[in-house]
Amino acid sequence: MTLLVQKYGGSSVADADKIKQVAHHLAQAHKEGNQVVAVVSAMGDTTDELIALARQVSRHPPEREMDMLLSTGEIVACTLVAMALRDQGLEAISLSGAQAGIRTDAGHSRARILGVDTQRIHQELEQGRVVIVAGFQGVTEDMDITTLGRGGSDTTAVALAIALKAQRCEVYTDVEGVYTADPRIEPRARRLDEVSYEEMLEMASYGARVMHNRAVELGWVYEMPILVASTFRSGPGTLIHGGANMEVRNKVRGIAHEVDVAKVTLRGVPDRPGIAATLFQTLSQAGISVDTIVQNASVERLTDLTFTVSRDHLEKALEMTKKVAKQIGAGDCLGDATLGKVSIVGAGMQTAPGYAARMFQALYQEGINIELITTSEIRITCLIDEKRVPDAVRVLHKAFELEQA
Amino acid sequence: MTLLVQKYGGSSVADADKIKQVAHHLAQAHKEGNQVVAVVSAMGDTTDELIALARQVSRHPPEREMDMLLSTGEIVACTLVAMALRDQGLEAISLSGAQAGIRTDAGHSRARILGVDTQRIHQELEQGRVVIVAGFQGVTEDMDITTLGRGGSDTTAVALAIALKAQRCEVYTDVEGVYTADPRIEPRARRLDEVSYEEMLEMASYGARVMHNRAVELGWVYEMPILVASTFRSGPGTLIHGGANMEVRNKVRGIAHEVDVAKVTLRGVPDRPGIAATLFQTLSQAGISVDTIVQNASVERLTDLTFTVSRDHLEKALEMTKKVAKQIGAGDCLGDATLGKVSIVGAGMQTAPGYAARMFQALYQEGINIELITTSEIRITCLIDEKRVPDAVRVLHKAFELEQA
Repeated sequence: MTLLVQKYGGSSVADADKIKQVAHHLAQAHKEGNQVVAVVSAMGDTTDELIALARQVSRHPPEREMDMLLSTGEIVACTLVAMALRDQGLEAISLSGAQAGIRTDAGHSRARILGVDTQRIHQELEQGRVVIVAGFQGVTEDMDITTLGRGGSDTTAVALAIALKAQRCEVYTDVEGVYTADPRIEPRARRLDEVSYEEMLEMASYGARVMHNRAVELGWVYEMPILVASTFRSGPGTLIHGGANMEVRNKVRGIAHEVDVAKVTLRGVPDRPGIAATLFQTLSQAGISVDTIVQNASVERLTDLTFTVSRDHLEKALEMTKKVAKQIGAGDCLGDATLGKVSIVGAGMQTAPGYAARMFQALYQEGINIELITTSEIRITCLIDEKRVPDAVRVLHKAFELEQA
Repeated sequence: MTLLVQKYGGSSVADADKIKQVAHHLAQAHKEGNQVVAVVSAMGDTTDELIALARQVSRHPPEREMDMLLSTGEIVACTLVAMALRDQGLEAISLSGAQAGIRTDAGHSRARILGVDTQRIHQELEQGRVVIVAGFQGVTEDMDITTLGRGGSDTTAVALAIALKAQRCEVYTDVEGVYTADPRIEPRARRLDEVSYEEMLEMASYGARVMHNRAVELGWVYEMPILVASTFRSGPGTLIHGGANMEVRNKVRGIAHEVDVAKVTLRGVPDRPGIAATLFQTLSQAGISVDTIVQNASVERLTDLTFTVSRDHLEKALEMTKKVAKQIGAGDCLGDATLGKVSIVGAGMQTAPGYAARMFQALYQEGINIELITTSEIRITCLIDEKRVPDAVRVLHKAFELEQA
């Protein structure tokens, strides 16, 4: 018998009708002879509503309490899915993260999974039950409830699939898979049948938000295949895996983009060891998450340092950077909040430098100015004017002939 | 240091403002040098909303899932109270029923408490924290979540007070204590400073719904004093206890009443052993909870049997009774859905029969017809026309001079 782990996000369980549809979906998989474990997120806006409630009683809700509060959202959803399944005549049981044996460290609001005690789940599966697990949560050694942070339910699903030695982890969402670009911007964008873990990581971190990187990384480390597909439309979806069956490599697989990017440039930085460390330690301590960092070549022992942050962190980042600039005797500090990112993603691009040239050429011909360039092994990213991001996606999609399989 | 257990009902934590007031109340008790454990119910209508949600996905939600669903209501409330306390500068921690060590049997939706493992609570108290416990819930040996049924949070509070050897259990609610009658009907009704456990049981089961009988019974068995007082108005409240300091006994302490009563009368019942057993077993199996039962003296081997049920059970009760009547060869079966109950309650009344006569006389003078009479050691109850219940309460309050202390 095949064991499947399926994950359903918040929009898939947003109301009673959708919950019934999810139950139907699960019943189908069960009737096809599979053992089924489902991980569900909180219904629709539940988490936001609970956060708002907490803010009404406390200016700084303690993380330990916040975790216990938020964990109820997923528990509500998973009991309702279990009820709907029972209503359709199937044996089903809901389990909280603690009951499902999801053991984590005590890092409240961002806990890491230490292990999964699968005994209870196996016991329920052996009795022919569909097991519904509350995503996003776990339990510490001291029986305190933790949450896993952003993308937590994806991570729960992949961790369970690994611990249960499932055939694969299926992530059901409101899109039909991973596309060559965002279909809302480029209508000719094509669903990919399969992508590698590393390509998925670059696609997701650069804006094609289908599932969370942390879960993809976990899948990669344990080589757990992940299928991303639509909850409410049948279709093959996209298989994220690292198998030998991958499509031709050395090819651009997709265009990722991101808006809401802000840039901070610190001019005239003395070229001494430890300077960058001082700056980024200060920012990290202030809770500012820095994305891309670029340091230009040193001219006369002075260098320019540029980094990007999310837009809502810009003000604080500028403030901190100015303080550090004074300390280390650097020059001006400039911020720019009107930027976006566009990236081409594909395995093995670094060894085929023609891609970069083709990318820059396409943007140039469209009159789009490049503010900053960064690359990884499988990605080339340009920072551009936010307003030009949709144009850039379309022109790159065409330049790399992504409308054709 | 004195250890107090305080319980706050759903109307006391109905919104963020009230939660802040409850936190203030708890902070006060803590600042006065007490160790404080608080038990809270779900906010306002949360439980009803969760039940409605369950009904949307399932015609017959399984009890095990329902318990897990409903338990989230109390968890939300207790985390918010803990947050509000932290916001007021106090150390506080919320604990679910499971975390607080409330061990129960597996009787979902009506679980009984088997014991309380107080280790975690003691540990938190020793660190100077106010401990907020989710009421109404516990956990089985298998880590499944249970709920305790009606009045569950009261029961949690009293059980914790007993297990923690608290000085007393304080139940804060939207009334200022136990009254000689319902103040909405009799404005001259007086708050009682103290009542005995048994008086409280009769008052509560006959309609003065201040706290649940199950919790009062538990307090009685373990001789845990229970103070009932208002959350939002300061006042002495009513102490429920069994101490030697009780007010004069052999006195009517209060008038209880109940509406929503229906009566079933089965005529011409053959006077054979086992007949009553057959009838009430049938009703019990159909989930009909029978309240008062009266069997008139047997005349020529035929007797009349009358019992009361809540109004929404009348139709089903009549149907079942007619079936049994046929089986056993009894006569007519009549129902009446327009009844109410009025009772006088006071310790030791049975040994002072003058009370019954005074009660019947007062009702007679007011032109109120008595349909049925039942008595216990400390209570005399008359079934009367529902429409006359308010008049009966007022006339009895006056007849027994309850407006004077």
